Amino acid sequence: MIKNIKIPDVTIERVALYLRPLEDYEKSGGHVISSDKLAELCNVNPAQVRKDLSFFGEFGVRGVGYEVSELLIEIKKILASDREWQMGIAGLDDIGMALVQHKNFLHRGYKFVAAFDSNPRNIGKHLPMGLVVQPLSKLKETAIDLSLEIGVIATPASIAQKTADLFFDAGILAVLNFSATHLRKPDCCLVQNVDFTFNLDHLAYRLNKKK
Amino acid sequence: MIKNIKIPDVTIERVALYLRPLEDYEKSGGHVISSDKLAELCNVNPAQVRKDLSFFGEFGVRGVGYEVSELLIEIKKILASDREWQMGIAGLDDIGMALVQHKNFLHRGYKFVAAFDSNPRNIGKHLPMGLVVQPLSKLKETAIDLSLEIGVIATPASIAQKTADLFFDAGILAVLNFSATHLRKPDCCLVQNVDFTFNLDHLAYRLNKKK
Repeated sequence: MIKNIKIPDVTIERVALYLRPLEDYEKSGGHVISSDKLAELCNVNPAQVRKDLSFFGEFGVRGVGYEVSELLIEIKKILASDREWQMGIAGLDDIGMALVQHKNFLHRGYKFVAAFDSNPRNIGKHLPMGLVVQPLSKLKETAIDLSLEIGVIATPASIAQKTADLFFDAGILAVLNFSATHLRKPDCCLVQNVDFTFNLDHLAYRLNKKK
Repeated sequence: MIKNIKIPDVTIERVALYLRPLEDYEKSGGHVISSDKLAELCNVNPAQVRKDLSFFGEFGVRGVGYEVSELLIEIKKILASDREWQMGIAGLDDIGMALVQHKNFLHRGYKFVAAFDSNPRNIGKHLPMGLVVQPLSKLKETAIDLSLEIGVIATPASIAQKTADLFFDAGILAVLNFSATHLRKPDCCLVQNVDFTFNLDHLAYRLNKKK
């Protein structure tokens, strides 16, 4: 179904944003969605939606809309989120605890199979899904044993780099970084930063423009 | 210093991403930064950085780079993050607690001045900065009294819409939504969703392309 052409990165990023509103729409009983409706739900412009989805081939019905279930399958295929990813998390304070309990992760194939912390208060803690928090010193060994693919860092900024290096040493190529610090990485590895301040900046900018 | 032209939204979004790496660079003693270096820190392409910064007028020194402190001031001005925003938060479980303790927020002018929860376990809890968690039933009244400008939702998905409606009723125009649900909103209001799954999708996509 997907056309055999390179899809631009900016399109991929936007398409990833269509996923959750589409899933919500399907859950609320929607089977077909127009590009105008999808644009409204995602807060983007309808011409942009049509252009982005044009990369996915011709499964929209002109003048009616798109089959929601089919659109979801295609988007997940593109995002490679139709498979399961084995993840390890380091740092089990507030944000780490919120992440391991995040229902959407598992539902979308992101599975925490190991958890680590350097704080004695957290080591040995029992988490949902039967996980027990291990000391950070076990990270490399466990990551290799379990073939972890993605490392999630939710540690204090002060030990984030040390933790990232442990993930990289274990052969993990992708790190999602929730710590408020910039991480150095080997060229072969990927780091995706989650910066809540960025979200606030963007909101404040839009609010300011409105006023 | 800023040219008197409309800066495209995509540029603004990218420029917001330059902020943290630039602040880190300044903290580590950097006074001048080249577009190549900034591009490397932000994981974007140098031509893109030069194009984005060209909207900001001519304070780069050709062949040398940009004054970091001046660049930061200009970016913050653009993003309207050179002022203080009064925020209220609803939901003080893991993610909410992580947010109220997030040091970068205050540093960048985002100030929590009120906190609300519907869970009796959380009501009355003392938070950093002298805040005490109030019942959700006090939200509207308090939001008006304190002239809150931004509402942050970190409640369970099941009560996120009800909470958002309370913020909107109190005249708050901007909501940052951490709950895993889509929110309906009046046309006049803004909602910015923070979806961790989106970050994982993007990382998984890049990882898949690499493999």
